[in-house]
Amino acid sequence: MRNSATAFAPATVGNVGIGFDILGHTVEAIGDRVQVTRAAERGVRIRAITGVATELPLEADKNTAGRALAALAEAAGLEHGFEMAIEKGIPLGSGLGGSAASAVAAVVAGNALLPRPYSTLELLKFAMQGEAVASGSVHVDNIAPCLFGGLVLTVGVDHPRTKQIPVPPGIRAVLVHPHMFLSTKEARRILSTTVTLSDLVWQCANLAGFISACYTNDLDMIRDAFEDVVVEPQRQALIPGFKAVKQAAMANGALGCSISGAGPTTFAWCLERDAARIAPAMVAAFAAHGLGCDHWISAIEPTGARVID
Amino acid sequence: MRNSATAFAPATVGNVGIGFDILGHTVEAIGDRVQVTRAAERGVRIRAITGVATELPLEADKNTAGRALAALAEAAGLEHGFEMAIEKGIPLGSGLGGSAASAVAAVVAGNALLPRPYSTLELLKFAMQGEAVASGSVHVDNIAPCLFGGLVLTVGVDHPRTKQIPVPPGIRAVLVHPHMFLSTKEARRILSTTVTLSDLVWQCANLAGFISACYTNDLDMIRDAFEDVVVEPQRQALIPGFKAVKQAAMANGALGCSISGAGPTTFAWCLERDAARIAPAMVAAFAAHGLGCDHWISAIEPTGARVID
Repeated sequence: MRNSATAFAPATVGNVGIGFDILGHTVEAIGDRVQVTRAAERGVRIRAITGVATELPLEADKNTAGRALAALAEAAGLEHGFEMAIEKGIPLGSGLGGSAASAVAAVVAGNALLPRPYSTLELLKFAMQGEAVASGSVHVDNIAPCLFGGLVLTVGVDHPRTKQIPVPPGIRAVLVHPHMFLSTKEARRILSTTVTLSDLVWQCANLAGFISACYTNDLDMIRDAFEDVVVEPQRQALIPGFKAVKQAAMANGALGCSISGAGPTTFAWCLERDAARIAPAMVAAFAAHGLGCDHWISAIEPTGARVID
Repeated sequence: MRNSATAFAPATVGNVGIGFDILGHTVEAIGDRVQVTRAAERGVRIRAITGVATELPLEADKNTAGRALAALAEAAGLEHGFEMAIEKGIPLGSGLGGSAASAVAAVVAGNALLPRPYSTLELLKFAMQGEAVASGSVHVDNIAPCLFGGLVLTVGVDHPRTKQIPVPPGIRAVLVHPHMFLSTKEARRILSTTVTLSDLVWQCANLAGFISACYTNDLDMIRDAFEDVVVEPQRQALIPGFKAVKQAAMANGALGCSISGAGPTTFAWCLERDAARIAPAMVAAFAAHGLGCDHWISAIEPTGARVID
């Protein structure tokens, strides 16, 4: 029985535009690492938080990773406790699923130390408890892809079921992260609690068309369906220059462009050949609104969080 | 150049529960037949309406089939006109897509008489103009499957795009039509014009899960996702005994059960082996509420409307 394990969990694009709260995909280029070590004393203790985001609570029950690992330890009825060290690779408040990644890395590493490890679907529920600390709501559009890898749809909350949706070959995700902080709670608070019936029909059609298009490599349908008519129109005002950035992506051949999770990271789907043109166009559009950016170009591989050490 | 053509268009289950206004599937067992004949005088004239539903307007511009055929004739810029005879196989106000079938059969038959026939996607737009007469709104969840055949998703209204979704092998649709009339306009009028954001998420997840499950033959996911949380809860009160009928279907192994289109026909999806048990259970539940029924058990074949003579 090993005494310590380190897991890597990738960043994720939540919502993917048309799948609010239920669809997400991985971005292998960046992620969080969590090392979990067995400790004599019960409970979970956070030893260190390092990397690109260190202003996170060290108290385990206020920390997404701490809470998730505690949920796993409690369910397993362990006699011992855990110590953890978190290395953040995902910026805070970026909309790249940083809290989900920390929670997922924690439960994947902790799970490797159990005599009878849980299934990935069971880990999803523990990670969800961590995610709720960060966002103030239980949602799985970051956690599910982070755990399973690739483009993942989740159906149901109490008894979540996940589907890995095939991504057509040659698709790339371009991610542009403007240097500003956007609170997930705030981005959620501003959303209207109701939508019109006709917007529901439109949103359902776009999501269903998108899913269908992914199974059939129908790039024209992906382009037509890649439009969030409910959330993006409400959130775009929180991101200076969003409209211009989207316009820049689309004018350079993107299949679609929207807000990653709660933002401000803005993402586009495109063919591999167009990515190197789209990324700088999006960065330039944010620069014109006074925002510096990081950016990544990533394939969407069906590889989720895993133990790396 | 032929002078006359007769087309058959199948009945359809609109909405299929989770795809309000955008998803539908064919029911080959019943349908409408329309014979179209070239006439010297311009315009469209309805010569006869026969079959199970004869109380329909004979004035072409108030009749779904007449309006659809007129739209085709106008677009084609014909020098001549059409005469048509409609043979209804689909009961009026049954929720089985009768108005869509008449409109589709009319344009398919009329198209066969054109020197340069339109594509099926173009016929969709003409048929939509007919359907609008009957329902008071432009929707395509009956017309698109009726034209293309099988389980069909439509994305977009102004420039509709359709996808035939594969139906897992061995699936049967059980349709039970209680002998009562339900107006599509009335069934639409009672719907709330708004839904909550959380119901939107739930409905989107169910539809996306259902579509994904159809591509992957995942019957467990079909069962989990086959739940309309928006429209069925509002419309079920219009159909006496609906809850008991659904309960009877589910207790006998159905994968899902909901209202066909605007109702009152109630349909269930099930495996072939369970259909012969589910159908009489649903009929008995309607009978207990004083309603006599017709019923059909149908495979969902990818065969749409076609010229038969």
